[in-house]
Amino acid sequence: MAKNKVSDRHKHHKESPIPRGSLLAIGGSESKGGKELSEEQEKNTDFKDEEILKYFISSLKGSDPMVLVVPTASTEPEESAKDYIEEFHKLGIKNVEVLDIRNRMDARKPEFLEMVERAAGIMITGGDQLRLTSILGGSPVLQLMKERYTYDEGFIIAGTSAGAAAMSTPMIYEGETQGGYIKGDVRITTGLEFLKNVAIDTHFIQRGRIVRVSQCIATNPGCIGIGLEEDTAICVTKGNEVKVLGSGLVTIVDGLGITETNIYEIKTGEPFSVRDMKVHLLAAGDTYSLPIYDQLHI
Amino acid sequence: MAKNKVSDRHKHHKESPIPRGSLLAIGGSESKGGKELSEEQEKNTDFKDEEILKYFISSLKGSDPMVLVVPTASTEPEESAKDYIEEFHKLGIKNVEVLDIRNRMDARKPEFLEMVERAAGIMITGGDQLRLTSILGGSPVLQLMKERYTYDEGFIIAGTSAGAAAMSTPMIYEGETQGGYIKGDVRITTGLEFLKNVAIDTHFIQRGRIVRVSQCIATNPGCIGIGLEEDTAICVTKGNEVKVLGSGLVTIVDGLGITETNIYEIKTGEPFSVRDMKVHLLAAGDTYSLPIYDQLHI
Repeated sequence: MAKNKVSDRHKHHKESPIPRGSLLAIGGSESKGGKELSEEQEKNTDFKDEEILKYFISSLKGSDPMVLVVPTASTEPEESAKDYIEEFHKLGIKNVEVLDIRNRMDARKPEFLEMVERAAGIMITGGDQLRLTSILGGSPVLQLMKERYTYDEGFIIAGTSAGAAAMSTPMIYEGETQGGYIKGDVRITTGLEFLKNVAIDTHFIQRGRIVRVSQCIATNPGCIGIGLEEDTAICVTKGNEVKVLGSGLVTIVDGLGITETNIYEIKTGEPFSVRDMKVHLLAAGDTYSLPIYDQLHI
Repeated sequence: MAKNKVSDRHKHHKESPIPRGSLLAIGGSESKGGKELSEEQEKNTDFKDEEILKYFISSLKGSDPMVLVVPTASTEPEESAKDYIEEFHKLGIKNVEVLDIRNRMDARKPEFLEMVERAAGIMITGGDQLRLTSILGGSPVLQLMKERYTYDEGFIIAGTSAGAAAMSTPMIYEGETQGGYIKGDVRITTGLEFLKNVAIDTHFIQRGRIVRVSQCIATNPGCIGIGLEEDTAICVTKGNEVKVLGSGLVTIVDGLGITETNIYEIKTGEPFSVRDMKVHLLAAGDTYSLPIYDQLHI
C-alpha cells in the first residue's frame, strides 16, 4: 500500500521548472591556447587546444552575442577579466562586457542587472568561492541570473575554479588542500545554487581533493560530489544531464549507498571513515545523470 | 526593459509545489509538564505548561492518530524515545510508534517506510543533527517523509533541538557553544531540507549562539538564520509562513541587506565582522514570512 501512494505522489514532481539554460563548470586552468601544455596534456592524444572555451562560445545564441565576464571571485578583478576579454576576442567574440561587482551594494545596481539581462552567456572567473557567495548571495543580480538560466533557452553560465565551485550547494571552501581526512577541517556553506545537492570541487586530481569531497558527502549522503580536474568541465543541461568535456577526468562521488560512517561519532579533529561510496571516473564525451529523486525541491 | 522581463518570469514561480504539511521546529527542552520551571519560565506570565507538545497533538489529523517518534539523533535512542512515548500517552495519544533507525541500512527498510506511511505526525528527538543527516541523507525513508510533508494535508513533522536544526539547509553542527566569531569555527553542511535557505539554530539565547548563526549567514546572505530559544518553537505552513509559539523568543537574522563583511578576506582562525544584518526578536503569536524570492528552487 505504501508503495502505491508513493508512486502517485511522484507524478507531481514535474511541476518544478526544468531549466532551459545550461551550466558549464570548469575545473580551472582551462586551455587558453598558446600556453605550455602540462605533462598530462602532452601525453593525451585527445587534447584539443581551447576545447572548453570554444564549446562555451559555440553554445551562445544570437548573432554578435554578448559575453559577460564576472570577476567577483578574484581579488584582482581587472586582471582576471582582462585575460578572458582577450581570450574571447581571440575566439571571435567582439562583444565582451565585465560585471565588475566588488561588494554587496554593487550587486543591487540597475546597470549590472541590465548587463545580465543583455548577456548571451556568463563567464565566472576563478578566485575564492566564498567571495562569490558572500557578495552575491541573495542579491538581485544573482536572482536575475537564476531566472535567465531557468527560463531562457540556450542561456549559458560558465564558471571556472571558484566560479565552478560556487555553482552548487553544498559549496566547499578553504578545506585543506591536501588531506581533508580530519573531521571539521573541511569548510562547507551554501553556494549560489544553480544546482542543488551537488558539491563541485575543482583542481581535483591536481590537488588530491577526493578525501575532502568524501567528508562533505559523508555528512549528508543525499549530495553527489563532482571533482573536476584542471582543463576539464561538465556541461549540465535540463538541470541534471551531465556531459564531460576537456582533457582530464571528472570524478563522481555518490554517497547514496554509504552503509557506514563514523562522522557523527567522532570528535572534531579526529580522522573520519566511510564505507561503500560509489565513485565514477569519466572522460570527455561521457555522460551522467544527476539523481532527481529530490526534485520535490523541498 | 530588464524590469518587465523579470516580472514575466516571476509568474512561473507558482509551478513549484506548496507543501500541504507543516513543520514544528522546537529549540529544545520544551515543557513536558510536572518539571521544575526555569527562571525565565517562572517570570513569564504567559508560560503555559506543555504548550508546544499540546499544539503538536492538536494538529494531528484523523481519529486515533499515530505519532511516530524518530530518536535517530540520539546515542541513547531507547531512552530518548521512551520520554516522548510517555509524554504523548499522558497527552492522550494512544498510538505511538518508534522509527528506530540506527544506521543507513535501516533507513531503507520497508517496515520503516510503512510506519512513515501510517503516521499522522512525526517527532524527531534531540541528540546530534549530524547523525540525522549522515544516516538519513538521501535515504528512501527521508524521501517518503518529504513526500508526505509536501502532498498530505495536515501532516506535521516536529523536531526538537537536533531534530529542529536538521530540518533545513544550511545546517550548523558542532560550532563552538559560545563564540563562533572565529572564521572556520562554525561547521556547516546540508540538512534534511524540509526548508531551504534557512539556518535553524537551537538553545539559542541559552547558549549565546547569535554569533555563529551570523557567521553562517555572512558566508551566504541568501539564507535566513532562525534562532530558537528553549521551550520555544516555530510552526511553518505553506513552506514559508512562520508562527511563533512557546515561552521564549525567536531570533531572526536576515542577511539580505548586508553591506559589508570581511569573511572572504580574512584567514581561517581570524575574527570575522559583518554590517547591516537585520535582526528580529519574535514572541508567541508573532508571525513572519520567509522570503520566497528563491522559489525558483534552482
